[in-house]
Amino acid sequence: MAKKSLNIGMVGYGFMGRTHSNAFAQAPHFFDLGYKPVLKTICARNADKAKDFADQWGYESSVTDWRKLVDDKSIDLIDIASPNDTHMEIAIAAAQAGKMVMCEKPLGRNAAESRKMVEAVERAGVANMVWYNYRRVPAVTLAKQLIDEGRLGKIFHYRAKFLQDWTISKDLPQGGQGLWRLDVGVAGSGVTGDLLAHCIDTAMWLNGGISSVTGLTETFIKERHHNLTGKTEKVGIDDASLFLSRFDNGSLGSFEATRYARGHKALYTLEINGEHASIFWDLHDLHRLQYFDHRDEGRTRGWRSVHITDGDHPYMNKWWVPGLQIGYEHTFIHQAADFIEGLTTGKPAAPTFRDALATDLVTDAVLKSAQTGQWESAKG
Amino acid sequence: MAKKSLNIGMVGYGFMGRTHSNAFAQAPHFFDLGYKPVLKTICARNADKAKDFADQWGYESSVTDWRKLVDDKSIDLIDIASPNDTHMEIAIAAAQAGKMVMCEKPLGRNAAESRKMVEAVERAGVANMVWYNYRRVPAVTLAKQLIDEGRLGKIFHYRAKFLQDWTISKDLPQGGQGLWRLDVGVAGSGVTGDLLAHCIDTAMWLNGGISSVTGLTETFIKERHHNLTGKTEKVGIDDASLFLSRFDNGSLGSFEATRYARGHKALYTLEINGEHASIFWDLHDLHRLQYFDHRDEGRTRGWRSVHITDGDHPYMNKWWVPGLQIGYEHTFIHQAADFIEGLTTGKPAAPTFRDALATDLVTDAVLKSAQTGQWESAKG
Amino acid sequence: MAKKSLNIGMVGYGFMGRTHSNAFAQAPHFFDLGYKPVLKTICARNADKAKDFADQWGYESSVTDWRKLVDDKSIDLIDIASPNDTHMEIAIAAAQAGKMVMCEKPLGRNAAESRKMVEAVERAGVANMVWYNYRRVPAVTLAKQLIDEGRLGKIFHYRAKFLQDWTISKDLPQGGQGLWRLDVGVAGSGVTGDLLAHCIDTAMWLNGGISSVTGLTETFIKERHHNLTGKTEKVGIDDASLFLSRFDNGSLGSFEATRYARGHKALYTLEINGEHASIFWDLHDLHRLQYFDHRDEGRTRGWRSVHITDGDHPYMNKWWVPGLQIGYEHTFIHQAADFIEGLTTGKPAAPTFRDALATDLVTDAVLKSAQTGQWESAKG
Amino acid sequence: MAKKSLNIGMVGYGFMGRTHSNAFAQAPHFFDLGYKPVLKTICARNADKAKDFADQWGYESSVTDWRKLVDDKSIDLIDIASPNDTHMEIAIAAAQAGKMVMCEKPLGRNAAESRKMVEAVERAGVANMVWYNYRRVPAVTLAKQLIDEGRLGKIFHYRAKFLQDWTISKDLPQGGQGLWRLDVGVAGSGVTGDLLAHCIDTAMWLNGGISSVTGLTETFIKERHHNLTGKTEKVGIDDASLFLSRFDNGSLGSFEATRYARGHKALYTLEINGEHASIFWDLHDLHRLQYFDHRDEGRTRGWRSVHITDGDHPYMNKWWVPGLQIGYEHTFIHQAADFIEGLTTGKPAAPTFRDALATDLVTDAVLKSAQTGQWESAKG
Repeated sequence: MAKKSLNIGMVGYGFMGRTHSNAFAQAPHFFDLGYKPVLKTICARNADKAKDFADQWGYESSVTDWRKLVDDKSIDLIDIASPNDTHMEIAIAAAQAGKMVMCEKPLGRNAAESRKMVEAVERAGVANMVWYNYRRVPAVTLAKQLIDEGRLGKIFHYRAKFLQDWTISKDLPQGGQGLWRLDVGVAGSGVTGDLLAHCIDTAMWLNGGISSVTGLTETFIKERHHNLTGKTEKVGIDDASLFLSRFDNGSLGSFEATRYARGHKALYTLEINGEHASIFWDLHDLHRLQYFDHRDEGRTRGWRSVHITDGDHPYMNKWWVPGLQIGYEHTFIHQAADFIEGLTTGKPAAPTFRDALATDLVTDAVLKSAQTGQWESAKG
Repeated sequence: MAKKSLNIGMVGYGFMGRTHSNAFAQAPHFFDLGYKPVLKTICARNADKAKDFADQWGYESSVTDWRKLVDDKSIDLIDIASPNDTHMEIAIAAAQAGKMVMCEKPLGRNAAESRKMVEAVERAGVANMVWYNYRRVPAVTLAKQLIDEGRLGKIFHYRAKFLQDWTISKDLPQGGQGLWRLDVGVAGSGVTGDLLAHCIDTAMWLNGGISSVTGLTETFIKERHHNLTGKTEKVGIDDASLFLSRFDNGSLGSFEATRYARGHKALYTLEINGEHASIFWDLHDLHRLQYFDHRDEGRTRGWRSVHITDGDHPYMNKWWVPGLQIGYEHTFIHQAADFIEGLTTGKPAAPTFRDALATDLVTDAVLKSAQTGQWESAKG
Repeated sequence: MAKKSLNIGMVGYGFMGRTHSNAFAQAPHFFDLGYKPVLKTICARNADKAKDFADQWGYESSVTDWRKLVDDKSIDLIDIASPNDTHMEIAIAAAQAGKMVMCEKPLGRNAAESRKMVEAVERAGVANMVWYNYRRVPAVTLAKQLIDEGRLGKIFHYRAKFLQDWTISKDLPQGGQGLWRLDVGVAGSGVTGDLLAHCIDTAMWLNGGISSVTGLTETFIKERHHNLTGKTEKVGIDDASLFLSRFDNGSLGSFEATRYARGHKALYTLEINGEHASIFWDLHDLHRLQYFDHRDEGRTRGWRSVHITDGDHPYMNKWWVPGLQIGYEHTFIHQAADFIEGLTTGKPAAPTFRDALATDLVTDAVLKSAQTGQWESAKG
Repeated sequence: MAKKSLNIGMVGYGFMGRTHSNAFAQAPHFFDLGYKPVLKTICARNADKAKDFADQWGYESSVTDWRKLVDDKSIDLIDIASPNDTHMEIAIAAAQAGKMVMCEKPLGRNAAESRKMVEAVERAGVANMVWYNYRRVPAVTLAKQLIDEGRLGKIFHYRAKFLQDWTISKDLPQGGQGLWRLDVGVAGSGVTGDLLAHCIDTAMWLNGGISSVTGLTETFIKERHHNLTGKTEKVGIDDASLFLSRFDNGSLGSFEATRYARGHKALYTLEINGEHASIFWDLHDLHRLQYFDHRDEGRTRGWRSVHITDGDHPYMNKWWVPGLQIGYEHTFIHQAADFIEGLTTGKPAAPTFRDALATDLVTDAVLKSAQTGQWESAKG
């Protein structure tokens, strides 16, 4: 019996358009899914490039106006992989048209936008999800399992950072293709929404809600050439963003994101210290989880470097054999598979738009605190 | 203009059938290829499983007799991913039918078989390649570039090992589905052909020919239940295989493979020490290359842990952005892409069947030396 | 010609009494010093234990009242290795008696005490130094050299933490022998003065002054049995202390210290990110410096793990041969040697009491900010 | 009650003269010993340098002829830290004079010399020991405990290497002060006796006797300037030495030593793979033991990086507090303390001269096999 199709309309063909397309292309090769994802239509502004992308990935057609996807009855799901300033409008229109909606993170450019998006999908009752892909690194998923099983005991500390170094040169322009993340009008914020948002999503998933924060931001390069205006313009984004926090469970948080940490390309690390055990993970070696269990015998107690490639590790029985690692793109494949499984089981996969809104409330509080110099509530 | 198709007939749907199928499915998503690979027909003994595999991977059809592939005029390439004892017969028939042939390693069960296969493809003049995939780990390819540029200077030492631990239990049976690697009749040898062969292929690619060896093998578990006969039978394979060698360039080699190294799943490591610089690589963290350059200033000289995810690293401009790692399966994708590029350029990609024969001459010499207790020539 | 003696009176024979005694005993074996340090008199409250300690370390005599050291004309230098609440009184008396004074860190229990100590030694014009020993880990000293040479360029980020886990059990009492660090009356503060002070001293030495901070402290265990009163009493110290800061040079700081980080015994780490290069160091592997230089060629650029055991590394030409590591105690030996060299050259070795006061101004600001929830000046 | 003195006459004031002197100077500061070691007399050829060394280390006197030590009734123990070609004569004379004898490794230049030394000390019935110091790295001692407790189960593999890079330059001369290790007449052999001997001593201590070997040696630089003759002369030592072996317990060994491994200063590593657990250790980070235990739960099973600084680790309760590492020199301090404890308890500490002879039988077999190309017995 042939499986029911899940027809996908994709918006955006940049970095995220590729990861999402790959996710839907690969998921059925490795997961036994209730629906067969079909790459139906790709939407991008440039018709030729959209056509090429369709050819390369096997989309059946391409369009240049996302409203065509909304209007297309054959499309079941609209996946938004375009810049942040487009998220709200597309998502709301898609929901109103009764489409399922997936959206690249951050959900909106700020919590106010995100809130409207949540309202739209919830009012329409459509399946929705935000691509906070790092939850589905097998090592991170395992961390979640261990915490939920109570392995760590009471948690004292949560520590996360996301370090990059790609904007250190002052000759790098802002704005336009590939550089919209430096344009505050498009992106909404700098590293706070781009990188810290990942750290916060994972943190709240693993360790529960954040109650309050005190933040510090900096823009190291004050002016840059703007690709769209052709002029040197003030840089509106934050280059670095740090905050301290209190979690609802009484633990303390320390967070940092920057694009000025020479030597790090995408060093997202997290560490959790509990009464009995601790966990450390690092995106640069994403297939390893460091685990320390104080209940081990004293003489041989140490941080365990767990190579997350065994069949009893999350998702790994779908892949190769023990010892053989997967990479970054697989986190999206896992998320696509889980989304589809959520459709089948009726138990929606997280993070939903509502979950993602909670993250935006924290990033908004960090940005506000950086202005006021005060502790701010992270609950909106 | 539509690209010309490259119609593939795949034999085998086990671990290697999956890696090869994935390679051909994914290569066109990331590489700009002169031919469009088409998953035409999968061949496997069990009709139902073959059908399911075809559905999952998008093969147009499935068959249970590999001769059908040989006879099928629409098939351009036969890819052999079935157990070692089937390689020779299929490859020779495919070559005689004028098909291109790709073959999982080792080429034959021994050099005698491999030699016949080389003769067949060369006589037929068909494109051919053996899946020694580790050459196409970007870190290993980079090592090759650095050596060829003379960065290391005169080479003194080459050191490789491939450590696993999956056969330590004496309750593990030999033979049959998933366990044919323990059955000497099917596999030809134990870790010598399965693991050392990888080490030798890479070594000769990086460091040139091996002239002579002295070897040592051991079978730790002497008898195991045989899944096909249902009886306890003598184990014919080598569980561990070590050898010392002299390379043609005067450097010394030390090699080891075992399935009895508790704690290692697929720890293939290699190290090369040259006059000026040294290189270390490790399959368990395959996206890193360790590089030491003595010409660095003394105070800050140290082993560099190079995260092989940048655009100027081999193959990596095809993937994501700096800092984001790829995994095991990508080595096969690279090999498929290179094979196809070889068809387009007319410059065949290595390793060819003839290259793979050279490896089998070394493994044969190791096994012989383990019997004679003498140094043996590795030149056949 | 015999060297002039430097007669030492030591106060305290606990952990720090041992490290200081060892420093003076070992320095002349490895360094060519202008003075010969003589372990003259040890002072401790318990006469028998003081006598035993004298025998073990070769002190000529022992006393139980530190005033005897002050009154002893033959003593040149009084070294204070007793708990924090004794530092001020002894130091001032020693200075007034014209003795050189060395003092274990932190200088006073707070900046007010430290200020009086600075005034006393400066008024008396006596040599003085505080045992912030981590400046003299060869890897850290090398970091200082590299920064001072401009290798890093403009500095963007400074990140330090000091993680321990020895007070997690609520059954651990506070106060008395070995546990005075948990008694706020004796210690002045918890991890802020004990651990953060180290991080701050190193940070300001490497990266210049800290202008302002926002802090967060927590006492996870609110009450503990007190060894001296025999009763359960409120815990007055901070178990964890975190702060964000701005440095005078425009860089951003992130600091954390805790005794509730399961799995870490004394994990003092620091990282500095500059425009051109970055540095990372870790007390658990103190003989290594991680160094990343963006000016390295792209393909082989990576974090260098520099094994700080070569003759051109700071202090290392005094020790063994390349490849052989030294440990924790050697940092004190280096400091003793540098102090004595300072006497010979007339160029006092740092950190002086005045340098240490600057650190106490920062720790005071962190503790104040943790109360006010505001950013506080770190300049006193 | 004053402790009985142990009066030491030391021969040699080079690298090993310093490590041994330091061992005896420091042992009583940290260990509660039955005898008080007294640095009585240092012997070295150059009278001025001997005098300086005596001053620096607190020797009571210095001499230039070792026979004076033998004749000195006040000397209890003669410790031989001079070049290999002096070991036999001094040791035999010392034993005949009834002195205890300690000797730097290797014992003799070959097994024939060593055998005479064993006979001398056993005939005289004097305490004797060889400074194979790496047994007393706390991590290595812990490995011994774990193996003896059966933690590893049946052992399959033992793997050791000792890599250096200090003789790669062909401009380095041979012979004379600091370079006698390159002079075969003085040293007896090259890396085989200098480095492999360490690996073999540890291996047989941890894993039992070696039965047979097949070896390979190479001299990369064939001629070097000789400091003593002033002429270019043939190099007689082995620059690199590798061998495979069978142990008495059925496990397989792989050993390698070289001074041509660019990037390694003193990288002595060892790994042992057993049925249940594996151990890895590395001299460059000597305060860590890597331990893998297959009996750990699958999901969190991994190599444990054990920081060997806790009070329940061998020797470490004598040093500082958890988290703070010791270094290379401490292995000699431990050995001196154990030797003295052996005198007190009457249970001699190992390795004795006889133990060291067993190592020389293996190194002789390796060198012989490298000539014959055959497997050779390692039992003499």
